[in-house]
Amino acid sequence: MVPDLQEIEQVHESIKSRINRTPVLTSSSINKIAGCEIFFKCENFQKTGAFKFRGANNALLSLSDEELSRGVATHSSGNHAAALALAARKSGVKAYIVMPRNAPRNKVNAVKEYGGNIIFCEPTQQSREETLNDVVSKNGAVFIHPFNDYRIIAGQATAALELIRETGNLDYVIAPVGGGGLLSGTSLAVKLSDNNTKVIGAEPSGADDAYRSIRDGKIYPSIEPKTVADGLRTSLGEKTFDIIRRFTNRIITVNDTRIIEAMRLIFERMKIIIEPSSAVPLAAVLANKIIFEGKKTGIILSGGNADFDNLPWK
Amino acid sequence: MVPDLQEIEQVHESIKSRINRTPVLTSSSINKIAGCEIFFKCENFQKTGAFKFRGANNALLSLSDEELSRGVATHSSGNHAAALALAARKSGVKAYIVMPRNAPRNKVNAVKEYGGNIIFCEPTQQSREETLNDVVSKNGAVFIHPFNDYRIIAGQATAALELIRETGNLDYVIAPVGGGGLLSGTSLAVKLSDNNTKVIGAEPSGADDAYRSIRDGKIYPSIEPKTVADGLRTSLGEKTFDIIRRFTNRIITVNDTRIIEAMRLIFERMKIIIEPSSAVPLAAVLANKIIFEGKKTGIILSGGNADFDNLPWK
Repeated sequence: MVPDLQEIEQVHESIKSRINRTPVLTSSSINKIAGCEIFFKCENFQKTGAFKFRGANNALLSLSDEELSRGVATHSSGNHAAALALAARKSGVKAYIVMPRNAPRNKVNAVKEYGGNIIFCEPTQQSREETLNDVVSKNGAVFIHPFNDYRIIAGQATAALELIRETGNLDYVIAPVGGGGLLSGTSLAVKLSDNNTKVIGAEPSGADDAYRSIRDGKIYPSIEPKTVADGLRTSLGEKTFDIIRRFTNRIITVNDTRIIEAMRLIFERMKIIIEPSSAVPLAAVLANKIIFEGKKTGIILSGGNADFDNLPWK
Repeated sequence: MVPDLQEIEQVHESIKSRINRTPVLTSSSINKIAGCEIFFKCENFQKTGAFKFRGANNALLSLSDEELSRGVATHSSGNHAAALALAARKSGVKAYIVMPRNAPRNKVNAVKEYGGNIIFCEPTQQSREETLNDVVSKNGAVFIHPFNDYRIIAGQATAALELIRETGNLDYVIAPVGGGGLLSGTSLAVKLSDNNTKVIGAEPSGADDAYRSIRDGKIYPSIEPKTVADGLRTSLGEKTFDIIRRFTNRIITVNDTRIIEAMRLIFERMKIIIEPSSAVPLAAVLANKIIFEGKKTGIILSGGNADFDNLPWK
């Protein structure tokens, strides 16, 4: 069932000792450039470097002892894999992570360091799913989907809950959208708390499947997405699509040039590290200043796992 | 006169509304790697991106109205230039900044943005000094030395004062050393508060003039320094040398490979941006784990003005 505000608040209570309470930062120089007042919720400082750790912990807390004894499994080459691995280790549970053979070395190392059991597959969707099915049927591990799961969505919603509790009412809250776990959770937490706040999804124009899906009322798969924002190349799931359709005000797309500019602006002015996906909301503001002029705007900085060997402005 | 603790506390009171109260951050994963408990005082989040803003403000506050009306001047291609420019603008005072023609574009732009009047000179010590003398004699501007000045030293001391007030007693406090303004201020604030805390200067081995100067009891000029830590290529001044000799316990040198590794570790684990000079203290800890084992260790992260087009691990 779609989480309501009470459930999100309960989830927050149950995971809050396991997660970092991340800071809300402001930058007077970025406010000046943007022409509005921005509150950055810094999930780049979350454990494992991304908001995904919230949902992963909530998923683990939802399992029975019998399920926990069998372990958890997922396929991911990104932040969900690291988040599930660490959340599982902290619960004393095995995590089986299916990763493509060509996954970036830093991502593989992160999962290893957090104690995840990596099973490599070929870099195709088919191989991923087959390998995951093998792991699940052999070990009885419980599959934890990276976003199309109400427990995950409710967990991700707690970032926006903390944000609006700290700032009070905002005019806008913006989150990036890939599979939609963060955006659907953010939309629920914000709209159920104050229906006057507008929630906006920010999406790369080179991976605009969510924009088109919401526009046309049906899920388009993300086919050959082309964007530097590697966390946002996924298609929506049925659950995230349904929530975004009902609770998100609109989706704004923005091109990679602007995404890279916004990422660098945050590096230079705030002295904090974000990954490209996290720069999309600020890029959306800077490309649409007239919409946000003078408004109190919350932005979820989703993660900080940038690849320092391949910063996008090189 | 060498500032005493009371003076440093008074300076802190007088500048504190003008500066950022920067956070003290910890990283459990870096503690695990280092084998000790490190408290990072984050002057990378200071206004203008470096601790230099503290001393610059104190210098301005020390001037008479008549002096202020003539403006301030300095020669610097680094953080002191930007700090003095902004501090002057906030006091409604003109700042004349002599910079070499070949200064990095981002440094020139920062000074411009903060309203500094830039006077370019040839990239030699002689041209710098002549150009500065011209500016001072023509405009009557008051020369503010980047470090060899008790007002500057007392200002820089306030970073360590805030650190130890927040953490309580520490076993060690480490600051990088270039011209010695930060290290001498840190040594005064720490040793005058608690003589049991050891203060250590961290210096690149490719620019080890401070190490040799303290060892031999006389100031060696920094000749052709070779280090990635561009903020630490300067020689000590007479005032900073004298304070460091009396109040700093020792200087540890560390090579550029370790400095770059430490910089990257802070990027990856803490998701914050520091410039190479700021990585030298952590590099000194990691190269001397036996000294710091299990100890409470404060580190001043001096600044965050890294050049993202030339990160040193490329």
